[in-house]
Amino acid sequence: MLNFASDNYSPAHPEVLAAVTAANEGDAPAYGGDAWTGWFEARAAEIFGEGTKAFPVLSGTGANVLALAAVTPRWGSVICADVAHLTADEAAAPEHAGLKLLTCPTGADGKLTPDSLTRWTDNLGDHHRAQAATLSITQATEVGTVYTPAEIQALTDTAHAHGLTVHMDGSRLAGAAASLGLGLRGLTSDVGVDLLSLGAAKNGGMLGEAVIVLPDAPPAAREAVYHLRKRTLQLASKLRFVSAQLCAMYDGDLWHRNAQQANSMAARLAAAIANIPDITLTRPVQSNAVFASLPRPLAAALSQQAHFYPWGPGDSQDRVEVRWMTAWNTTTEHVERFAAIVRDTSAK
Amino acid sequence: MLNFASDNYSPAHPEVLAAVTAANEGDAPAYGGDAWTGWFEARAAEIFGEGTKAFPVLSGTGANVLALAAVTPRWGSVICADVAHLTADEAAAPEHAGLKLLTCPTGADGKLTPDSLTRWTDNLGDHHRAQAATLSITQATEVGTVYTPAEIQALTDTAHAHGLTVHMDGSRLAGAAASLGLGLRGLTSDVGVDLLSLGAAKNGGMLGEAVIVLPDAPPAAREAVYHLRKRTLQLASKLRFVSAQLCAMYDGDLWHRNAQQANSMAARLAAAIANIPDITLTRPVQSNAVFASLPRPLAAALSQQAHFYPWGPGDSQDRVEVRWMTAWNTTTEHVERFAAIVRDTSAK
Amino acid sequence: MLNFASDNYSPAHPEVLAAVTAANEGDAPAYGGDAWTGWFEARAAEIFGEGTKAFPVLSGTGANVLALAAVTPRWGSVICADVAHLTADEAAAPEHAGLKLLTCPTGADGKLTPDSLTRWTDNLGDHHRAQAATLSITQATEVGTVYTPAEIQALTDTAHAHGLTVHMDGSRLAGAAASLGLGLRGLTSDVGVDLLSLGAAKNGGMLGEAVIVLPDAPPAAREAVYHLRKRTLQLASKLRFVSAQLCAMYDGDLWHRNAQQANSMAARLAAAIANIPDITLTRPVQSNAVFASLPRPLAAALSQQAHFYPWGPGDSQDRVEVRWMTAWNTTTEHVERFAAIVRDTSAK
Amino acid sequence: MLNFASDNYSPAHPEVLAAVTAANEGDAPAYGGDAWTGWFEARAAEIFGEGTKAFPVLSGTGANVLALAAVTPRWGSVICADVAHLTADEAAAPEHAGLKLLTCPTGADGKLTPDSLTRWTDNLGDHHRAQAATLSITQATEVGTVYTPAEIQALTDTAHAHGLTVHMDGSRLAGAAASLGLGLRGLTSDVGVDLLSLGAAKNGGMLGEAVIVLPDAPPAAREAVYHLRKRTLQLASKLRFVSAQLCAMYDGDLWHRNAQQANSMAARLAAAIANIPDITLTRPVQSNAVFASLPRPLAAALSQQAHFYPWGPGDSQDRVEVRWMTAWNTTTEHVERFAAIVRDTSAK
Repeated sequence: MLNFASDNYSPAHPEVLAAVTAANEGDAPAYGGDAWTGWFEARAAEIFGEGTKAFPVLSGTGANVLALAAVTPRWGSVICADVAHLTADEAAAPEHAGLKLLTCPTGADGKLTPDSLTRWTDNLGDHHRAQAATLSITQATEVGTVYTPAEIQALTDTAHAHGLTVHMDGSRLAGAAASLGLGLRGLTSDVGVDLLSLGAAKNGGMLGEAVIVLPDAPPAAREAVYHLRKRTLQLASKLRFVSAQLCAMYDGDLWHRNAQQANSMAARLAAAIANIPDITLTRPVQSNAVFASLPRPLAAALSQQAHFYPWGPGDSQDRVEVRWMTAWNTTTEHVERFAAIVRDTSAK
Repeated sequence: MLNFASDNYSPAHPEVLAAVTAANEGDAPAYGGDAWTGWFEARAAEIFGEGTKAFPVLSGTGANVLALAAVTPRWGSVICADVAHLTADEAAAPEHAGLKLLTCPTGADGKLTPDSLTRWTDNLGDHHRAQAATLSITQATEVGTVYTPAEIQALTDTAHAHGLTVHMDGSRLAGAAASLGLGLRGLTSDVGVDLLSLGAAKNGGMLGEAVIVLPDAPPAAREAVYHLRKRTLQLASKLRFVSAQLCAMYDGDLWHRNAQQANSMAARLAAAIANIPDITLTRPVQSNAVFASLPRPLAAALSQQAHFYPWGPGDSQDRVEVRWMTAWNTTTEHVERFAAIVRDTSAK
Repeated sequence: MLNFASDNYSPAHPEVLAAVTAANEGDAPAYGGDAWTGWFEARAAEIFGEGTKAFPVLSGTGANVLALAAVTPRWGSVICADVAHLTADEAAAPEHAGLKLLTCPTGADGKLTPDSLTRWTDNLGDHHRAQAATLSITQATEVGTVYTPAEIQALTDTAHAHGLTVHMDGSRLAGAAASLGLGLRGLTSDVGVDLLSLGAAKNGGMLGEAVIVLPDAPPAAREAVYHLRKRTLQLASKLRFVSAQLCAMYDGDLWHRNAQQANSMAARLAAAIANIPDITLTRPVQSNAVFASLPRPLAAALSQQAHFYPWGPGDSQDRVEVRWMTAWNTTTEHVERFAAIVRDTSAK
Repeated sequence: MLNFASDNYSPAHPEVLAAVTAANEGDAPAYGGDAWTGWFEARAAEIFGEGTKAFPVLSGTGANVLALAAVTPRWGSVICADVAHLTADEAAAPEHAGLKLLTCPTGADGKLTPDSLTRWTDNLGDHHRAQAATLSITQATEVGTVYTPAEIQALTDTAHAHGLTVHMDGSRLAGAAASLGLGLRGLTSDVGVDLLSLGAAKNGGMLGEAVIVLPDAPPAAREAVYHLRKRTLQLASKLRFVSAQLCAMYDGDLWHRNAQQANSMAARLAAAIANIPDITLTRPVQSNAVFASLPRPLAAALSQQAHFYPWGPGDSQDRVEVRWMTAWNTTTEHVERFAAIVRDTSAK
């Protein structure tokens, strides 16, 4: 069966596997004392700027919760979009760590705007109300759209003006950077982001991600992430195997190549189905996901031939919104076959 | 430099790496919908008994916290040994999840006894006092000793009589089983254990462990672990890469071969240094660790030639207790070289 | 200045103060071993039915968090209305205790409907999504409306069908009962409610409320509330002083007299201003609150002559919604004076 | 029956009740906007020094948890004595808020020493170990002893040198001050204490205590306590009734008179029984508690004639340690009667 279900269904890229294999030589200090972790830390500082501190961790949800816990004081809460993975798909993990999420409604593009934060910043200073202390932005967003650097800067300016720290959920940051033709720094350190969950698994990695404390983060954030990493269950004993993957991904341009491939396959898919009657693209296609509204019978028929997920919650009785996601290993042939299936099934 | 620091310093066993490599073929459902996870779940039921439910997770501390959170009600606390990894080396992760640890003093063997639980079970029913709801036993213990099945049964009987659920931190369970010449079931399901953190990394794995809900666990435990796995940040997206390691380890006898090798190297080391003047073995050597009391200058000199850790807290001004740990990849040659170094340095 | 700000601005009713004074005689066991607590426990069983267990506590937010923590497993979350005090005005206290709140949109009446729960119950069984385990209903609601017994029964039936426990935030339950001409049982035990936060302070009490475990609650709830009361910081040392207030309120009909007076004053106020041009009542007036939409200059002018609070969030540039709240000590004279002020100010 | 069980068994002092009664006049802003709260805040600044910020709260355990949560970062833990109320008698409330308690063994006097902190400060910087961030001292201690100002200064100096913030559990601070003939400032602000749980209930209050942020506390502590007060369920709606008690207690010398009476009654009791054979005083009698070791039959016989509690854990088969506690309303006649009972019963 074809797979447009998730970039998490893909295997690791061969270069990542090769790095893991190469790291499996001899003994090495545990918990980050190894050479691979050192290399990745140094590389992160090159990418994101001097003063950056990198912490390889075990999962994307783990990266988010660790980063947010590190900079959100016990009396603080976290603003995010209503479609944020954080609130929609992390099984209440942030709240398990005591973090209330303050959600803002978003439109079809799933993006926060500076104005949308007002709803919560208006409550600052009121001891009956949750106090926003952190803003979390997802880049690329959960609906495959991409914030421009100017949009990020506007959000971080607003957040900082209210005393908030800014976190970016960058589990698909590579895709956003490739989409915009920018480097990773131009979407993070350069535009006011303080902490970053840097993705790997969805972009050709195997297991693990990283929390990156960017140069302008509050100074206490480094110590906080360091000491919270084990406390939030994100410290691997044989950390070299996570760090080796991150080295493979970020030492050269593997991150970019993988994201580029996934993005271009999504664009190709969108183009191929754009003029099929009865199918409407529901979100701008800017990274590696295509969202479309389909008649329910068509969606049901297609799900016999390819893996993909429905996407709520704006479905009607007749139509359903679905997500088709591409990955580093999606090929032109996959896309053409799937587009043909969609065309043929739709025509019946 | 020689390494007797930790079994976490070792690489993955080649069979584990081969399994990871083999799993890196094509797409596979994420979050546990893959074949490897299914195989491991089935295998776990063979090993531990019908009704067993297995959940691959990301780290040992994660396995412990997830298992304890799943069976300890919000008003409950957890009894453990004073030397338990849980309280001594997990950076307050259990308390971060709201779990108070009720520690019991132990002797040189680091083992709990039924009598030692009384201190806390005496408080049951008193609404001013922490209420023990769970007992956590480490097998093999943090000081390398091993509970016999009868000792475990006595503890689980006492715990169950007080309404407590029993968890075993089995990050080194393989070592205990190999030491006693028993299977894994004989130390767990057969003697009253309800939930198990089943180790892999310390015994030749790469990344990941498992939470095993044993057949006699409270029925609600399965659903609780299932829903808490992501919430406690222990659900890998590409879970097949964890499950493939667990398959490699537990499908055949790799777990036993690795543990056997580590154990026999510890026994060999203990024998080789047993009659060196000035060195005293401080704990029974029953699995893959040798604890010894050394004059401080000797410890300092040795630490120039091999990695190992000091072990508090009973040190004096003159002497220090150290831990020498073996692993699946420790060889006779390593042990002989190190023993010679110890002899020579001690003789100076 | 006139006060229509909050029923929390009122003093304690003289009978409550008299009960506190009477309780201040001699020594009495602490932490609930006193006679007043015993009397209130017995009285609660008469009111709510055999098997009821009552726990006097310190605050309304405390009652809610304690009740929810007692019946929501660690993997569970809580459904509530978007206007629920729980999420809007409790400073993230539920999330501080690890409870994610799953909010449902409500209309002008601020009420949940069985259909509105679907949004969250649809996620049951999905390990990526927060799992609803408890439903919390506020009676009377935060916007002064009242659920009928049939409406509550429909909600509790739906909740129970999905395995959820039902909590009622009854900080203003007396007002709802008086409004409907029903007893307290008819709105709680008789219609499927499992746990109740029973109010006192807003209805003429001084300090303290109660958590009531109703007869059909899950059996483990009693032990859970008992042991969580101190853990959630809700156990007063000199508990007799809370229990004595509850006795004064609920032994006879003081709860009803106070609520009746507050309700009738709200009705009188609503009637008195109903036909003033430029003022629109925005919510049905069913208990002790009047919500109205006013031109901003009028609201500003009135706020010089009476205490009251603005009520977001549907304000426009020209108009603001305000809340005018009555209490047990609001008199006809207060209402007439305020209505005259509103009329006169509006006419200018 | 005579009462030597607890100072929590006592009623409120008549002056406290009178203050509550006087506060029950007319409407007043809720949640601390009232005049009594303002007066107490001002008075606290006079007592403890300029820059002090006072927060009336609902319970002693609540005061402790709120104060500790306000100054302990999410990655931090709290050092306290093994006999601290915090760990022994607060039903795991600190851990419920995510705070691990790092206990230090104490001798018969129940006091921490600077050296005893080393056990935990030695772990600072190690990401596997709980990181001490706060020190909590109880004054007077749970065993009725009293730290001298020099002893407190030595502890706060050591703590501050390691970057720790210092909290004092002062639920019986008045007793310590009366015992030493010092003012409240001399035991707190003047000797390096940062935050204080200031007691009332045990010293003649009715309901409520206060968290005092002292002048030298970390600047962020004020905002943290302000926003955490409701979050930790410690904000009373009708706060004036707590503040009025605190005003009654601390405006004049009621706190001192009450403590003086309780202390002198304990001294009298200790003197009266000092030379009874078979009874040994086990702790220095320095405030309002007498600890004694008794033959078990004697303890059992006495418990038929007076309320008092056993005190573990050093009991033997033959003897038990008990606590006899005096209060503001203990009289010479009570003490004489009880001493006579002890003498007579012992003689049998």
